[in-house]
Amino acid sequence: MLQSQLFAKTIKEDPKDETSVGTRLLIRAGFIEKIAAGVYAMLPLGFKVLSNIENVIAKEMENLGAQRVAMSALVPKTNWQVTGRWQTLDVLYKVKGKGNEEYGLGATHEEEVTPIAQKHHLSYKDFPFAVYQIQTKFRDELRAKSGLLRTREFLMKDLYSFHIDAADCDKYYDRVKEAYFSIFGAAGIAQTTFLTLASGGTFSKFSHEFQTLTDAGEDLIYHCGNCGLAINREVKSEFPKCPDCGSTDFDEKKSIEVGNIFKLGTKYSEAFGFEAQGSDGKKLPVLMNCYGIGLPRLMGIIAESLHDDKGLVWPRAVAPFNVHLVELPSRDDSGSQTKTVAQKIYLDLQKQGLTVLYDDRKTVSAGEKFKDSDLIGIPTRLVVSAKTLEQESVEVKKRDSNEVELIKIDQIGNSVF
Amino acid sequence: MLQSQLFAKTIKEDPKDETSVGTRLLIRAGFIEKIAAGVYAMLPLGFKVLSNIENVIAKEMENLGAQRVAMSALVPKTNWQVTGRWQTLDVLYKVKGKGNEEYGLGATHEEEVTPIAQKHHLSYKDFPFAVYQIQTKFRDELRAKSGLLRTREFLMKDLYSFHIDAADCDKYYDRVKEAYFSIFGAAGIAQTTFLTLASGGTFSKFSHEFQTLTDAGEDLIYHCGNCGLAINREVKSEFPKCPDCGSTDFDEKKSIEVGNIFKLGTKYSEAFGFEAQGSDGKKLPVLMNCYGIGLPRLMGIIAESLHDDKGLVWPRAVAPFNVHLVELPSRDDSGSQTKTVAQKIYLDLQKQGLTVLYDDRKTVSAGEKFKDSDLIGIPTRLVVSAKTLEQESVEVKKRDSNEVELIKIDQIGNSVF
Repeated sequence: MLQSQLFAKTIKEDPKDETSVGTRLLIRAGFIEKIAAGVYAMLPLGFKVLSNIENVIAKEMENLGAQRVAMSALVPKTNWQVTGRWQTLDVLYKVKGKGNEEYGLGATHEEEVTPIAQKHHLSYKDFPFAVYQIQTKFRDELRAKSGLLRTREFLMKDLYSFHIDAADCDKYYDRVKEAYFSIFGAAGIAQTTFLTLASGGTFSKFSHEFQTLTDAGEDLIYHCGNCGLAINREVKSEFPKCPDCGSTDFDEKKSIEVGNIFKLGTKYSEAFGFEAQGSDGKKLPVLMNCYGIGLPRLMGIIAESLHDDKGLVWPRAVAPFNVHLVELPSRDDSGSQTKTVAQKIYLDLQKQGLTVLYDDRKTVSAGEKFKDSDLIGIPTRLVVSAKTLEQESVEVKKRDSNEVELIKIDQIGNSVF
Repeated sequence: MLQSQLFAKTIKEDPKDETSVGTRLLIRAGFIEKIAAGVYAMLPLGFKVLSNIENVIAKEMENLGAQRVAMSALVPKTNWQVTGRWQTLDVLYKVKGKGNEEYGLGATHEEEVTPIAQKHHLSYKDFPFAVYQIQTKFRDELRAKSGLLRTREFLMKDLYSFHIDAADCDKYYDRVKEAYFSIFGAAGIAQTTFLTLASGGTFSKFSHEFQTLTDAGEDLIYHCGNCGLAINREVKSEFPKCPDCGSTDFDEKKSIEVGNIFKLGTKYSEAFGFEAQGSDGKKLPVLMNCYGIGLPRLMGIIAESLHDDKGLVWPRAVAPFNVHLVELPSRDDSGSQTKTVAQKIYLDLQKQGLTVLYDDRKTVSAGEKFKDSDLIGIPTRLVVSAKTLEQESVEVKKRDSNEVELIKIDQIGNSVF
């Protein structure tokens, strides 16, 4: 798209009320807008990143054989009462309608997915199965001071799997672990993200978190130097030795949870009386797992992990555009030559299936254009100027490198990107 | 996908608590699930239709030059107080957080989009521009008894355009009207949908609605037999003659609103003090329009408009799958021949880029398979049976026709669909 038309502009001043450097950069670069503490809107650049993250995640979910559904945010009080969480889930926002209907705003969706699944899966032949949703969750967080890293409203992927065989349940859980590392790979944070033993919260005794190293994190993990497993401080006292390899060689590190998976056992299926009819007519207990990833938090963690002092450095799979095409119109010919060439490259790249942000702005200096480009952080930058055109070339620079290369215009192909 | 794996099954009994025939069919066919009065979940088939509708709408919005954003559902009380709607918008659900933060759940988003736009658009050079969102809205409807046709929570497309020139504002409004008819064309309801003069509600004196004829509708419109414009009963007394052509030849018809567009004037920009800096340094008033479509309602209206006594009849652009491939295994060879052929067709069609629901179920009778197929309503059905294979053929039937045709297997190409 044309940068002159871009809805949101970059901002020079650092926002004063944000402690997270990633969130500050996202605001300055025009990706997000703070609406209130813990509440953010996605501006067009931010929406594109979020959509790309959504696509990466959805693809992995489909590979796991999960089917996508959309559940409601208004989850009736009666559903929460079945599990007791109307009283015990302290982050639940409660809403009352005109006719005295009461709802809890979906903070998690076990209370809705379980009765839906129950309605359609009665026989052992219907198992196993899995569904997922990518939807807004609401959590009444007392403190929401870490920008995108802890918000009161956020898009979340939740996968729920249902099993009648314990070995199958464990196997699927392990397959999801692998899918999660594929997702974090695309997000550019696989190297700094560790599988971590953690408390099960309201769900179960233990769970697995995926913790990404960052100084902005609220968690402390103990990383096993031998096998790579990490243990969250909250349960570290129960594991003097690494439960996987027996080592006692731990590094203490600051981190943030980027995903969390739980074995729920029969906790929710029992509450709703969800059993399967076995082949012999006897009732079988239904085992459930749930697997979450908060999308804006993942976006915030990418921003937190991948930036330099000039701005954001997006990994290719989630970047808002593939290419930032920057035209520097020369003063003497009023930019007509650079414009002709830049427009042709702009159209050609799009024909190749690449997404391009074309900085066509006329009254902005070269220095400002470069500053904005570094701040926005698109993976590849192409510069068209009178100087590069003298050599029938464009200047190519990757955002994550300092090397600048001249490439002949007729050789701009997919290999450049 | 394999129908044996489909998350939701068809249901034989008509739901008793639904008055809308379209909603009843959607529940029976396993597209949606009722969670509470006015609250529905989308099951996998329903989610696919909703996504297709979303894609149709998003494409039209991009063609209008609008940029997609995502706003929050938690809209702070202070925003609503600026316009006075904290007190006057009677469908607003109000939510209180632990720290006494108060929010109105986004029932409409003028109170959020206006201050965001204001922050990024100060100069006359920044106009016109438009943004859109496709997100959940919440409305505390006293009566929610019409299935998907009036719900308390629903995905909605809202487009907001901003102008400093009145002629430009009107021109854009007319362009959106055209885009709406493209959308309704893809949804298969263009022939029964009329541009309708209506009240402006809390927004302005008049607005334009798009009303689709249906006996399940809550509205009465007066359709001009001469020029085709319709007038909603609520404002009919102000128009004894058709305002477009002067005719008095009106037909009274029952209908439902499938979209609504408003000229907001400066109502919201003034409330937020949003003015543009003119070229001469003077302040210019900012004109706003807003344009809505509720996606589940559109889905409900399609179901209401396009069905027969056997089930749903989806138009191609929004159908959950392009093809329903039905295998009827013969008893004598245990279905091994039909299975081989059906699987090959299943893979070939997908290679051609078609989406296919493959009824691979083994213990279901041919009669039940046909009943389910008619109920689900995919546009094209291919049947593979021992009988069709005797002639090296498959049986082709369009859902909206009674004609059945035999086609040689090696001639199943795109022309069939």
